[in-house]
Amino acid sequence: MTYARQILDTHPAGSAIEAEVLVACIDACFDCAQSCTACGDADLAEDDVATMIRCIRLCLDCSDVCIATGQVLSRQTEFDSDLARSVVQACLQACGICSQECDRHAAHHEHCRICAEVCRRCEQTCVEVLALLVV
Amino acid sequence: MTYARQILDTHPAGSAIEAEVLVACIDACFDCAQSCTACGDADLAEDDVATMIRCIRLCLDCSDVCIATGQVLSRQTEFDSDLARSVVQACLQACGICSQECDRHAAHHEHCRICAEVCRRCEQTCVEVLALLVV
Amino acid sequence: MTYARQILDTHPAGSAIEAEVLVACIDACFDCAQSCTACGDADLAEDDVATMIRCIRLCLDCSDVCIATGQVLSRQTEFDSDLARSVVQACLQACGICSQECDRHAAHHEHCRICAEVCRRCEQTCVEVLALLVV
Amino acid sequence: MTYARQILDTHPAGSAIEAEVLVACIDACFDCAQSCTACGDADLAEDDVATMIRCIRLCLDCSDVCIATGQVLSRQTEFDSDLARSVVQACLQACGICSQECDRHAAHHEHCRICAEVCRRCEQTCVEVLALLVV
Repeated sequence: MTYARQILDTHPAGSAIEAEVLVACIDACFDCAQSCTACGDADLAEDDVATMIRCIRLCLDCSDVCIATGQVLSRQTEFDSDLARSVVQACLQACGICSQECDRHAAHHEHCRICAEVCRRCEQTCVEVLALLVV
Repeated sequence: MTYARQILDTHPAGSAIEAEVLVACIDACFDCAQSCTACGDADLAEDDVATMIRCIRLCLDCSDVCIATGQVLSRQTEFDSDLARSVVQACLQACGICSQECDRHAAHHEHCRICAEVCRRCEQTCVEVLALLVV
Repeated sequence: MTYARQILDTHPAGSAIEAEVLVACIDACFDCAQSCTACGDADLAEDDVATMIRCIRLCLDCSDVCIATGQVLSRQTEFDSDLARSVVQACLQACGICSQECDRHAAHHEHCRICAEVCRRCEQTCVEVLALLVV
Repeated sequence: MTYARQILDTHPAGSAIEAEVLVACIDACFDCAQSCTACGDADLAEDDVATMIRCIRLCLDCSDVCIATGQVLSRQTEFDSDLARSVVQACLQACGICSQECDRHAAHHEHCRICAEVCRRCEQTCVEVLALLVV
């Protein structure tokens, strides 16, 4: 059980949405923030850095959006579904676009293959959170 | 002329969208990130903190989303309109919800009145950026 | 094996310092960023919120510092030991101060007990990283 | 008068340290976070990107540290001098190292010249804050 789940289970207000789905997304957001930062940095050290520019840029964006999303979803007090939905939609979008770019380099750069996988997993958890945040 | 504008004007790729609109939004995002952090913190020190809980929470969310948005818009290289649009929409949403809550406390707490103003200005710059990011 | 370790092992420049120690600190920083955000938010929902003000504030600070530290340590390309050392020292300080405050509430609030543990673990990994970043 | 100063002047606890010095540092931190993100991104679009790797990496680090520092200093409630000092020291270090690297490219890249200036200004405000946070 991750720390995110342990702390969520002790929150006086309880989980704003189904705990298992929420925690999976929170953990995936922080994983993806780290992976994208590390992948963008590894891209910078590759001999073919000139061909990795789009990958670096999207990894940076995706990391920023994942951190914001992970932080917003980590808060249960006075949870606002509209705000959460729009942030999770942005995260889903960023992860989808970044994973597609990383996939293009997966055969050449193992860090891109792994990062694409982390992005896709995060994207999928966003889909599942959005299904619980219907208007 | 802000530093954001000065650096944008020297970017080898130029500005991804109209520079004036873009810079107004970038600067507003960083202003709003700071204001929301400061307002949420001032709320914490108020005697009526128990009535400020929703304001604190939304300020924290809004700050996180504004930082991510300000960072994403600060990048022009391999700019992705779809990613930018979804992030700016989340920012518009966060600023709108946060300004409404701050407005409720504006008569009692001057920091909420100011923060609501900063949020609304940021929200408005997001509207203007979105108008340039039409599908 | 965490994603942080998997991507690190495929970095063209290798790990700037011993991989096991580095990854433990990176993972602990992101865990601690999330825990502190979640604990500060849980504090906000407690009936005794007025007694939790210092805990909330320090959790917010600790989360911010842990994110910066986790991001900086996730980068191996052109690693700068002086920069890394000063950031890790700030993280060690923030985690130490926050864990002490959370400990004061551990008997009453289980989220504080857990968060104090996560902070201490992060603090310890910072100590171990600093030992490898001697001047 | 910046929004940071306006909100600070309405904080129920007042400014933790002399307001003018504090606000100068807060504003400089957010300026520097934005400048470093924008400069690192402009580096990515330069023809000589392969010679800008160290500059990109340090800009990313400096942006992360400046955001954390700007956020921590924006909070006056239960201000902890030890925590603030260690974060500001990290910021001073990051800005100093980043400005030196940007200076190396200032003759070729105007964005590096501007970013070095912003970093140095932030570094200087950190020095002034530290002088008020003596042990």
